Amino acid sequence: MTFQQLWAETQPVGRADRWGGYHRILGSSAELELREWFVGAAASRGMHVEVDRAGNHWAWLGDPDAARDRGQRPLVVGSHLDSVPGGGAFDGALGVVSAFAAIDQLTDEGQMPAAPVAVVSFAEEEGSRFGITCLGSRVLMGSLPREEALALRDPDGVTMAEALRASGADPDAFGPDPEATARIGTYVELHIEQGRGLADLDRPVAVGSAIRPYGRWRLVLQGEGNHAGTTRMVDRQDPMLVLAEVVRRTCEAALARDCVATIGKLHVDPNAANAIPARVTAWLDARGPDEALVHEVAAEVAAIEGVDSVQDFFTSRESFDGPLAESLAELLDDAPVLESGAGHDAGTMAAAGVPSAMLFVRNPTGVSHSPQEHADEADCVEGVRALAQVIRQVAS
Amino acid sequence: MTFQQLWAETQPVGRADRWGGYHRILGSSAELELREWFVGAAASRGMHVEVDRAGNHWAWLGDPDAARDRGQRPLVVGSHLDSVPGGGAFDGALGVVSAFAAIDQLTDEGQMPAAPVAVVSFAEEEGSRFGITCLGSRVLMGSLPREEALALRDPDGVTMAEALRASGADPDAFGPDPEATARIGTYVELHIEQGRGLADLDRPVAVGSAIRPYGRWRLVLQGEGNHAGTTRMVDRQDPMLVLAEVVRRTCEAALARDCVATIGKLHVDPNAANAIPARVTAWLDARGPDEALVHEVAAEVAAIEGVDSVQDFFTSRESFDGPLAESLAELLDDAPVLESGAGHDAGTMAAAGVPSAMLFVRNPTGVSHSPQEHADEADCVEGVRALAQVIRQVAS
Repeated sequence: MTFQQLWAETQPVGRADRWGGYHRILGSSAELELREWFVGAAASRGMHVEVDRAGNHWAWLGDPDAARDRGQRPLVVGSHLDSVPGGGAFDGALGVVSAFAAIDQLTDEGQMPAAPVAVVSFAEEEGSRFGITCLGSRVLMGSLPREEALALRDPDGVTMAEALRASGADPDAFGPDPEATARIGTYVELHIEQGRGLADLDRPVAVGSAIRPYGRWRLVLQGEGNHAGTTRMVDRQDPMLVLAEVVRRTCEAALARDCVATIGKLHVDPNAANAIPARVTAWLDARGPDEALVHEVAAEVAAIEGVDSVQDFFTSRESFDGPLAESLAELLDDAPVLESGAGHDAGTMAAAGVPSAMLFVRNPTGVSHSPQEHADEADCVEGVRALAQVIRQVAS
Repeated sequence: MTFQQLWAETQPVGRADRWGGYHRILGSSAELELREWFVGAAASRGMHVEVDRAGNHWAWLGDPDAARDRGQRPLVVGSHLDSVPGGGAFDGALGVVSAFAAIDQLTDEGQMPAAPVAVVSFAEEEGSRFGITCLGSRVLMGSLPREEALALRDPDGVTMAEALRASGADPDAFGPDPEATARIGTYVELHIEQGRGLADLDRPVAVGSAIRPYGRWRLVLQGEGNHAGTTRMVDRQDPMLVLAEVVRRTCEAALARDCVATIGKLHVDPNAANAIPARVTAWLDARGPDEALVHEVAAEVAAIEGVDSVQDFFTSRESFDGPLAESLAELLDDAPVLESGAGHDAGTMAAAGVPSAMLFVRNPTGVSHSPQEHADEADCVEGVRALAQVIRQVAS
């Protein structure tokens, strides 16, 4: 099938009326529908579907275990199918759809390598339900301990263990999966660019070189809940005032250090218009060119009076395989090589020692995690062509 | 039954584990359970239960229509049984429980007047589900048009009309209820004080004189949703920064005018830690000694760049019946007379021309709309005694 045909299959799934974007959250009907689509797409291509112990979906063409015994390094291409709430159509889905489309293109041209190739769809990459990004790949590779993952809670207070049980899965079986991991010879992830690098360079496709350092902190701002109409201003302990200071200082601290930092998520207790909040929880997302600078931003915010800060996670700079990136850039007509400010499962793979690379597809406005996220169809087709070239080169 | 016995019946209902307070939201299982309790309490006292066209519950002892024909003015006492999310045990429930307890005390003493007396429980006083306080009394008295009320949406997007239909009620029958209204000769509402007036005066019970002017505004802060990791700080249109300014200026504007103003409720779209919000909605609650001052606070906040402000409602100063308040203060051993910074259904009644009064019961810390809200049992018993005296005097 062409990219356009495959894309048309996935586009209606998980449209979020409320925001105009996509709502494909782990375990939601939209996300389950996309998993079914993945299984069907694999079956119709004669690919063998496996779900690893961390809940990631794999579609194998050829036998990776036999190939490994022959000394081959099976190639995995893919991305993820979940989204942030109200996210765009491309973040994640483009990589999975393009993977199938690239295989179809090579098959149609009689150029598909004989070596095994898999399409992967990683689970909960956005962390929209359980709060940790790249959850599926982190658990798979053991970089997030299974006990920690099982204890994570979604916004309704449901733990990952309970969610697994409710879906018919066995929490005891959840965790790292050395068998699945051993099959990944090389991992190449295609993704929409989440900045304007390619737009500025007037090129459709880039090769990724690294993922910038990235941390998330949970800030608890404790106040004293009280009646909005009867409590004098001077008697208040209003955590909303602390939040105002957190937002202001987050912006200042990031600007001063060439980092980016965001307060994008809040939880207000009790969140009633006629009650001074008892507590506001805010999440700080900070990234930058250098680990020390990112930590400085977080430390400056944590030092604000009334802020109790806990680090959710911190990801060091993850450099992709240098020689691989160079060879791919050369293969793709000297494609530009860009760093990514966003985290990706390819970063988890690289951190675990898997030779990994990324391809980025041009995003004219750079907007992502938003219904305005966009890539032109012609660029998506260029991306599929590039991925097909990569598969032919790397898998053979 | 004694106050303590009645109180013990209602206390377990709607305990909110998450906050430690009470979660008694219109249509929730807790609120439905309290309605059942109300019907049972009425039945066991031989009182006739009616639900008016606005969803408020009435328990009548005696026949108000016959009494009116005789030229009597039936007395209504009561309050509400709903709560803010995570609210205290006393706000609302104390008034309804004390009403039944006062009737029991008078009955036990053989002092219950022959004239009809009702206990009322008004619906959605806190506005916690549909956003408008005193919703049941406003619709009943016609001060909130039924079409506006039916179109209100709860946080899940369910309209009041849909909620009525789902509960088996007929939205076409919803609206003002002149028959029910005509039965209210006098309304007296007992309520926990939501400030420290009585604590400072070292007295258990006060009489209310007025409700201060009170308005609510919905502030929409429109930004541009984008990726938290890849969007440069200078390229952002982050509505969270506007929120910070709104919070700061709300506090300043209120302090400068001897008003109180609160940002207690937020809605962040899409509320993802790794996304710059596309939009933040904030609710401004402002009250003060004078209508013009309250409007000035709201205008100052609305003038902030990036703020789109819509008034949800505005309630003018509502003075209770002056002679009635004076006579009750005299009856209750020269009880102090206090203004209320909080809105109450008694304010809606007074605005509609019903002779109305309030009794306040001491709150040692003044904290309300919070699990820390408290009244000593001895003061609650004093409140019941005072309400019994009022019933005996006003109903005879």
